[in-house]
Amino acid sequence: MEAVTPIDLRSDTVTQPDEAMRRAMAAAEVGDDVLDHDPTMAALEERVAGLLGVEAALWVPSGSMGNLIALFLHLRRGDRFLAPLGAHVLDAELGTAAWLAGGMPHALPVLTPEAVIAAGGGESPYYGLRTTLLCVENTHNASGGTVTSVDEHAALVAAARSIGLAVHLDGARLWNASVALGVPLTSLTAGVDTVQVCLSKGLGAPVGSVVAGSASFVVEARRVRKMLGGGVRQGGVLAAAGLVALDRIDRLAADHSNANGLASGLRALGWEVDEPSTNIVLASVPDLEKTLLSLRDVGVLASPMSGKVRFVTHGDVDSSDVAEVLRRLREDI
Amino acid sequence: MEAVTPIDLRSDTVTQPDEAMRRAMAAAEVGDDVLDHDPTMAALEERVAGLLGVEAALWVPSGSMGNLIALFLHLRRGDRFLAPLGAHVLDAELGTAAWLAGGMPHALPVLTPEAVIAAGGGESPYYGLRTTLLCVENTHNASGGTVTSVDEHAALVAAARSIGLAVHLDGARLWNASVALGVPLTSLTAGVDTVQVCLSKGLGAPVGSVVAGSASFVVEARRVRKMLGGGVRQGGVLAAAGLVALDRIDRLAADHSNANGLASGLRALGWEVDEPSTNIVLASVPDLEKTLLSLRDVGVLASPMSGKVRFVTHGDVDSSDVAEVLRRLREDI
Amino acid sequence: MEAVTPIDLRSDTVTQPDEAMRRAMAAAEVGDDVLDHDPTMAALEERVAGLLGVEAALWVPSGSMGNLIALFLHLRRGDRFLAPLGAHVLDAELGTAAWLAGGMPHALPVLTPEAVIAAGGGESPYYGLRTTLLCVENTHNASGGTVTSVDEHAALVAAARSIGLAVHLDGARLWNASVALGVPLTSLTAGVDTVQVCLSKGLGAPVGSVVAGSASFVVEARRVRKMLGGGVRQGGVLAAAGLVALDRIDRLAADHSNANGLASGLRALGWEVDEPSTNIVLASVPDLEKTLLSLRDVGVLASPMSGKVRFVTHGDVDSSDVAEVLRRLREDI
Amino acid sequence: MEAVTPIDLRSDTVTQPDEAMRRAMAAAEVGDDVLDHDPTMAALEERVAGLLGVEAALWVPSGSMGNLIALFLHLRRGDRFLAPLGAHVLDAELGTAAWLAGGMPHALPVLTPEAVIAAGGGESPYYGLRTTLLCVENTHNASGGTVTSVDEHAALVAAARSIGLAVHLDGARLWNASVALGVPLTSLTAGVDTVQVCLSKGLGAPVGSVVAGSASFVVEARRVRKMLGGGVRQGGVLAAAGLVALDRIDRLAADHSNANGLASGLRALGWEVDEPSTNIVLASVPDLEKTLLSLRDVGVLASPMSGKVRFVTHGDVDSSDVAEVLRRLREDI
Repeated sequence: MEAVTPIDLRSDTVTQPDEAMRRAMAAAEVGDDVLDHDPTMAALEERVAGLLGVEAALWVPSGSMGNLIALFLHLRRGDRFLAPLGAHVLDAELGTAAWLAGGMPHALPVLTPEAVIAAGGGESPYYGLRTTLLCVENTHNASGGTVTSVDEHAALVAAARSIGLAVHLDGARLWNASVALGVPLTSLTAGVDTVQVCLSKGLGAPVGSVVAGSASFVVEARRVRKMLGGGVRQGGVLAAAGLVALDRIDRLAADHSNANGLASGLRALGWEVDEPSTNIVLASVPDLEKTLLSLRDVGVLASPMSGKVRFVTHGDVDSSDVAEVLRRLREDI
Repeated sequence: MEAVTPIDLRSDTVTQPDEAMRRAMAAAEVGDDVLDHDPTMAALEERVAGLLGVEAALWVPSGSMGNLIALFLHLRRGDRFLAPLGAHVLDAELGTAAWLAGGMPHALPVLTPEAVIAAGGGESPYYGLRTTLLCVENTHNASGGTVTSVDEHAALVAAARSIGLAVHLDGARLWNASVALGVPLTSLTAGVDTVQVCLSKGLGAPVGSVVAGSASFVVEARRVRKMLGGGVRQGGVLAAAGLVALDRIDRLAADHSNANGLASGLRALGWEVDEPSTNIVLASVPDLEKTLLSLRDVGVLASPMSGKVRFVTHGDVDSSDVAEVLRRLREDI
Repeated sequence: MEAVTPIDLRSDTVTQPDEAMRRAMAAAEVGDDVLDHDPTMAALEERVAGLLGVEAALWVPSGSMGNLIALFLHLRRGDRFLAPLGAHVLDAELGTAAWLAGGMPHALPVLTPEAVIAAGGGESPYYGLRTTLLCVENTHNASGGTVTSVDEHAALVAAARSIGLAVHLDGARLWNASVALGVPLTSLTAGVDTVQVCLSKGLGAPVGSVVAGSASFVVEARRVRKMLGGGVRQGGVLAAAGLVALDRIDRLAADHSNANGLASGLRALGWEVDEPSTNIVLASVPDLEKTLLSLRDVGVLASPMSGKVRFVTHGDVDSSDVAEVLRRLREDI
Repeated sequence: MEAVTPIDLRSDTVTQPDEAMRRAMAAAEVGDDVLDHDPTMAALEERVAGLLGVEAALWVPSGSMGNLIALFLHLRRGDRFLAPLGAHVLDAELGTAAWLAGGMPHALPVLTPEAVIAAGGGESPYYGLRTTLLCVENTHNASGGTVTSVDEHAALVAAARSIGLAVHLDGARLWNASVALGVPLTSLTAGVDTVQVCLSKGLGAPVGSVVAGSASFVVEARRVRKMLGGGVRQGGVLAAAGLVALDRIDRLAADHSNANGLASGLRALGWEVDEPSTNIVLASVPDLEKTLLSLRDVGVLASPMSGKVRFVTHGDVDSSDVAEVLRRLREDI
């Protein structure tokens, strides 16, 4: 068998920076963002804050650092926080929410306002455990890129508020939720204290995320970023790519369309596939490890997620790539 | 209404030291347990190690410290550990398992060998999260003092071992499990790496627990105890009471009998009561807060647990006290 | 050579509880100090708060835990704190001031108001490092039990205040300073935010220290004590001994007198000895390890401190013991 | 007064990326460095490992993160480590060496082999404090960019080894030491366990440092980098600039020459100036704050360091800029 170029659907993080981003990086006006404030960083942060409807924002090297900074500042050592089962902060950040940010996680199998209130109040105070934060995630990766609607979001925030919890939104793919719902980002950040969004997934920037909230939060977040080693010097070269990425939000509709096409095609081939909400397709298979290897053998790269096969569409994959994926699966598996 | 002396069923921790313990404390041979090894401490630790069938043991001021030391030594910062939902290390130790011991907790709603294997293996390594420890609890407080049998225990340990996990047993009330099952303590510690037992609950010592395991574990545990501020000087005065407490293990059968009598009596009064396994009785009520207050008004002290009313029998409560509790409830609620 | 009973001058921590303490322990009125407030604990804490001239106090199992709780509550993660070189919190608490309380220590070789101001202000803010706490120690163990006078103390506190630092006083042997100076304890706690005092050194209680400060500090300190595993049940048995110990403060004058006698005697034997201020005698020797072993061989136990031999007088050593120590040294070394 | 363009001598971190770097960033071959290994990252890491004479290397967003990762992996919670007074890890990384890496710092006023041995051995074990690491810094920023020679380095490493300490080298400006001494980098890393070097100071890359050591160290370092949020996606865009920066090492000789010229000129103007060893000039002034403001007023930016004025030469400052600095000072201060 001759070698085929693999089509990489493991994650939208594999997206390559495009020419416009590369030109922007090369031309970026920069400064020392530790001693001063890099001007392109400043421009990016101001633009993201505006999009999210919050006072201020801070560039960080990764979404993990953005979440970590927010949790670090929300949580005193030992505070309990709530998050949906499978949340990125619980499963995919090497335990930092616990040992570094200082929180005791409590996972909610189903994230509803009732579940928040039931878990956040009640007996814990008897032992002195303080529940102080709700961490939500939109879209929710582990569930297959599912979307929390504006109403659901508002109800969760209201529930959290009613028992005195702060709210952090892990919005690594909040852009996808906004596009899928056809609503502005601000309607999905309404009421939260802090939010993290990634420039490097569907938007295609090579490096970087943004954590945002009140002006005073960002002052402290800048300190914590330096603590963690995330303060960089002429970061404007990356921020410049981030600014270009922010022009790409509408493009996500194509990813969603491609995910739909892939899901339909897989079903036509007899796969058991969850209905995709955004750019993630989860397929249930009898043997996950084996299926991932078989896929790789025919030139389709996917990843494991929640015990299923995860395919993620992104800017380097178009409808013809999806057709080719389906062709390879039809012939070879 | 004339005041009645309350009958305190909030916890077996309220037990008062008896005369024999007080005499033992007053007469204890002691030394500086930080510079040297207090001789009564040494005797207590050796005796507990023998009862538990492990190499060595270390006195600690509280069960929380015993669990914390064990988790601290088992977990590298960021390691994930498994524990049953509602475990004391998750809900009742102020988050120290996370922020201080350094672990990322993962709660299992139902603790079975299959659940351990499903949670401990699988995708987490994809993100680098390492699951390294299973923490079990026997008897399980949040479930109402339920007992893990010898076979169930062995199966859980075997499951953990099969995926490379260490095992810590929170045996705060392991004595109760041993008495309820009529098996030696060693059959309930079989295969574990570390175990913590309390001298201050059903056994009635005023202060102290013991954490135990291999000789090398105890060497390190002594260091960590000092770190946490749990190294004491002439602790033999407390160890002396602990040695007396160890003669009280068989007495727990009476607590279990009284719990059964209380459960039957409550049912006869129309209460919805879980079948007690040991010395804890859980009753489901429509309004927990209100019921606890009403109970207090008639001179019966209980505590909240898992959304239910918890009554705990102990050495300062005999069958006539149980009868009096039922009489007060019959007349006054 | 026939065996001699060693005279133990390693530390005043080796003091055995006396008969009055043992009787008090045996007779103590007690309660569950986690669920409620043990009455004898409450009495001890109130009495110590009064002696120290602060609002409230909290019993802890060790001085290390008392210092740790205070530093934990004073310091945000990453804050810098100042302490004299050789301070107990720097050298003798296993690094907890740093890794657990979260502080970045800065040791001052000579503790003067000028040194505090020079170290606490200046450039550090340039890098974002915040200096927020001065930790003082009276008497200062590593310097040989030296005493900070009322005026010196006031000047240090004023210096710290002038640059916005909080002040914690490690007063493990503050009783000795008070007796040596002939001033009330309150004049040595004036202006501090928190203070820790030990019941188990010169005062002779078997176990326990007290950390004290404002009422709101003690509320939080109780939480942190529980976190660290220092919340105990019927701790009144220990508090009862502590109450007796508090009647022993004046007795420390005898320890100081014995330390003077020992120092004079050693000098007469040709030893190079620092002038003792309280109950600690430091002697400079050419080979520390060898001298400690030689002393042990003749039945005199001492300990290393700051590169010197440390002899500590205490309640189980009287002037005849000091004479016997000198006799043994005269004959055998 | 008409505005002058300020000449920025606050730090070499202000260096702007040059055209070659910008072109390299725009053209970089990249991949997802979290899921895979970005090819340009891999090339950079291999090249740096070779230059430093160690097995493997890892790109990190900042020198602070590089030091933090190394200390985190060297230190168990509570271990003591030695570092020269004023070290970057002590004063300029927001306390992370303590609260996050877990170490108890012990600063050495003068870093000599004798001081290492005196501090690292001795009595600390009496209290259980374990000293396990020596952290050196070459060039030493706080002393004015002073250089540790090959022989001095070897003697320090040998001293550390003789008492069982690991050695971490903060080589943020190790390139400067190598150029100043005219020796290869490998002679300045000889015997160390880990080393951190910055691409973003004198070498002029916009973002990034490298931490290096054994292959197994780098495997673990990659995990810790992800924990801290320093794992980036298409980081090759930055690594490409780093590769260009590595061609700039010889250029540092010009910075050193300019520093010498600046020092001579300042002396000629009556300033009290330390003899520069590399690219840092420290000047003693009566009033640091006031001098920094006066300098700024005439268009010369400097920074405070160790109570003195620090001027740092770098790639964006040539000899004519130095002459202009001297001219401005001559006329206006």
